[in-house]
Amino acid sequence: MTKTAAIIGGGVIGGGWAARFLLNGWDVRVFDPDPEAERKIGEVLDNARRSLPGLSDVPLPPEGKLSFHADMAEALQGASWIQESVPERLDLKLKVYKGLQEACAPDAIIGSSTSGFKPSELQEGAARPGQIVVTHPFNPVYLLPLIELVTTSENSPEMIDRAKEIMRGLGQFPLHVRKEIDAHIADRFLEAVWREALWLVKDGIATTEEIDEAIRMGFGIRWAQMGLFETYRVAGGEAGMRHFMAQFGPCLKWPWTKLMDVPEFTDELVDMIAEQSDAQSGKRTIRELERIRDNNLVGMMRALKHQDWGAGAVLNQHDKRIKTASMPAHVDEIEDLSQPILTLARAVPLDWTDYNGHMTESRYLEAFANSTDRFMELIGCDADYIANGGSYFTAETHIRHLDETHAGTRIEVRTQMLLGQGKKLHLFHSMYEGDKLLATAESFLLHVDLKTRRPCAPLAEIEAAMAKIAGAQAGLPYPEGAGNSIRRPA
Amino acid sequence: MTKTAAIIGGGVIGGGWAARFLLNGWDVRVFDPDPEAERKIGEVLDNARRSLPGLSDVPLPPEGKLSFHADMAEALQGASWIQESVPERLDLKLKVYKGLQEACAPDAIIGSSTSGFKPSELQEGAARPGQIVVTHPFNPVYLLPLIELVTTSENSPEMIDRAKEIMRGLGQFPLHVRKEIDAHIADRFLEAVWREALWLVKDGIATTEEIDEAIRMGFGIRWAQMGLFETYRVAGGEAGMRHFMAQFGPCLKWPWTKLMDVPEFTDELVDMIAEQSDAQSGKRTIRELERIRDNNLVGMMRALKHQDWGAGAVLNQHDKRIKTASMPAHVDEIEDLSQPILTLARAVPLDWTDYNGHMTESRYLEAFANSTDRFMELIGCDADYIANGGSYFTAETHIRHLDETHAGTRIEVRTQMLLGQGKKLHLFHSMYEGDKLLATAESFLLHVDLKTRRPCAPLAEIEAAMAKIAGAQAGLPYPEGAGNSIRRPA
Repeated sequence: MTKTAAIIGGGVIGGGWAARFLLNGWDVRVFDPDPEAERKIGEVLDNARRSLPGLSDVPLPPEGKLSFHADMAEALQGASWIQESVPERLDLKLKVYKGLQEACAPDAIIGSSTSGFKPSELQEGAARPGQIVVTHPFNPVYLLPLIELVTTSENSPEMIDRAKEIMRGLGQFPLHVRKEIDAHIADRFLEAVWREALWLVKDGIATTEEIDEAIRMGFGIRWAQMGLFETYRVAGGEAGMRHFMAQFGPCLKWPWTKLMDVPEFTDELVDMIAEQSDAQSGKRTIRELERIRDNNLVGMMRALKHQDWGAGAVLNQHDKRIKTASMPAHVDEIEDLSQPILTLARAVPLDWTDYNGHMTESRYLEAFANSTDRFMELIGCDADYIANGGSYFTAETHIRHLDETHAGTRIEVRTQMLLGQGKKLHLFHSMYEGDKLLATAESFLLHVDLKTRRPCAPLAEIEAAMAKIAGAQAGLPYPEGAGNSIRRPA
Repeated sequence: MTKTAAIIGGGVIGGGWAARFLLNGWDVRVFDPDPEAERKIGEVLDNARRSLPGLSDVPLPPEGKLSFHADMAEALQGASWIQESVPERLDLKLKVYKGLQEACAPDAIIGSSTSGFKPSELQEGAARPGQIVVTHPFNPVYLLPLIELVTTSENSPEMIDRAKEIMRGLGQFPLHVRKEIDAHIADRFLEAVWREALWLVKDGIATTEEIDEAIRMGFGIRWAQMGLFETYRVAGGEAGMRHFMAQFGPCLKWPWTKLMDVPEFTDELVDMIAEQSDAQSGKRTIRELERIRDNNLVGMMRALKHQDWGAGAVLNQHDKRIKTASMPAHVDEIEDLSQPILTLARAVPLDWTDYNGHMTESRYLEAFANSTDRFMELIGCDADYIANGGSYFTAETHIRHLDETHAGTRIEVRTQMLLGQGKKLHLFHSMYEGDKLLATAESFLLHVDLKTRRPCAPLAEIEAAMAKIAGAQAGLPYPEGAGNSIRRPA
């Protein structure tokens, strides 16, 4: 059954939540008195549709239904999750919760996007305080996995587990903060850096651009994959964390006093920063910067996915969850084997395309190789089988490029087995966008013993699975383009 | 002529500098009284050789010579760059500089890796203060591009420019800090975060692992590509930076007071952190963590390279510099065209391999596609030509996998043109590791009008270049494996 989320307060944050839910198959009902809400959420959704589906190597569920409601109570109908992202004023939030609790299901979860308030403050005077938690996201909400989940003793363990499970289902990483505190965890660090940055600009030590370079060319890249402590642990070497701390103590060298102080926020300082920021980034519109940011994030997160690390490991877990729920584990589970088998369905990710947005030549082979991996898995040559020492190696591949495709396009590969006998496996993959044939790949593989790296027959279960496919696909014509070669010029 | 760098003080930082110089073709002479120095630098070099060469898409120059010297004056012989990375004690550093200046060339640059001292402090009492600058790197020095270059009025503009040019030649990003200040720029931010993190652990708000997750799952990934100000500019939306600041002011919401204070560094706090860090990261050795970190960094930096952004743009500029200096721009500059043309020489990067370190199937096509691009460039179908509306599209490719290769391996591709006439281009690429043939790719391409996306003849200059190659390569045998197809099973 399709689940429903209510989004209370649109904008960049509410819109990001709406995108997470929608693109993961939830229906989304929005309440936001801002007459611009529909346009604003639409813009966030455009960015999300361009970048999020391709992060997954499996197809996300069909998009849910998006609707806008002038009446808050109407927006809440059927909602099992209510995400509040209204402005950061406690009186306003408390008023909103009162309205929400008069109309919503008593077991719905009310998550607040607040970056500053503690959940106990939000629960104050509520009809059902146990229904309210902090679920603080990070912009762009549709890409970054972190959610700070902050709870109080009013929230039941059952409800907290349910909240975590829902966020994981959206591909997020709920970090359960063990004790509530103003600004939770991450924003305390952001504020510390922000304040010191203001000093540096004010004192003429560095411009906004120089500060940004000092971050992104050095520790910023490190922090994308290990945090503060693990990074320092590695820096400390074999002597370990204790050695690192003995070396540095509470201040990395000694207290640099500006850190203690709050800079005066004068008009001059605001002007200075605004002007420097214009000089640094003003040649690009915000829309352009958003897309550059998302291209970068998708590329880096997919690089981390390949390493199964950090945000990349979160993505792999999300894929696995979707795969387990919706895809056959073995050919025996496929009802109709008489047609080419669906071995890949995905959106073309942003990192598979050139600067014009066309899918790059080598990524066609990447998609086809993924199809081969999936075919292997379906006949029983899965991770466990490979760990036991057998696998298939590709000896030869013939690719034909018939049409172009673009970032975000939903592509499918269907695979006909031309031969699967003994050590030999001969596959013909066809890649489609809808009915349009984009490319084909004919691959010849050999089963190998991973120790000797030499060809050998696979285990009997795999031969049996291949025989089953061979029987079922016997009626298929030999595909057009199979057996092709590039002709020798006359 | 090979240039020489002297490394004064080995360890993780000195070793990282040694690797940067060596792998970019400099001879490196090390002075470090630590009897373990050779082993320690060797370990850093192992990591660097594994990760750095593959970052480049062009071949780095041949590695320089590494030598260790028991006498500091001997280590300085012929050195035009001297990098000091001794422990952070001012008296020690001043003593080292005195010794250095007695023996080194007066125009050599002495760069200090200090993270805390100002250059004016380091120049105090020096024979030639103008020779000393701060060049503060970030660990791992062989991968991260940032160098904080801090100078004083004692340093001549000529010397500062020369220092920048040398660092760019090492693939680094020198950030010239305009006013000296304790801890320069980046470490002031690191200290602010470190101090706040200690409070969070001490007060039981979060463990080291939770803090690391709060960083890497959220703002850490953002900061790998845009810094603080550009990120907030985007968050502020079309209203811009001024709007963002009006919303937040000097504190992101309001001052969270712990930021003001230095935590007491008790034994209890040290124990707590060491134990939490063990629980978080103790199941892996430092060596394993270093390799994971480097795999992640290489993958992310190469993703940014694809976007030509941030650290990735620095890598592209480094490649371009090497290319301009050492590679022909056009076939007319190649002396012997009678043999297959060198179209790719590179180290297999860490992101091209599977978890066993074998090069992944689709990356063979990526290498071959790069060879095709390079061949196109050599016949005049370069970036300018493509911007003017013509290019080649691959219609068909036949790949044969003959042997395996691994991360870090130096591979070469040589290309025979089988046909280059009118709109048709038929290439045969052979990939080698030394003399061992790893794979071949036969590609058939069509010249297209990028507007209509339809085949058409190229400009005359390109036809002429192809005719020249055809004439020169006419004596080559038709390559074995060309024209192959995968046979239809009987």
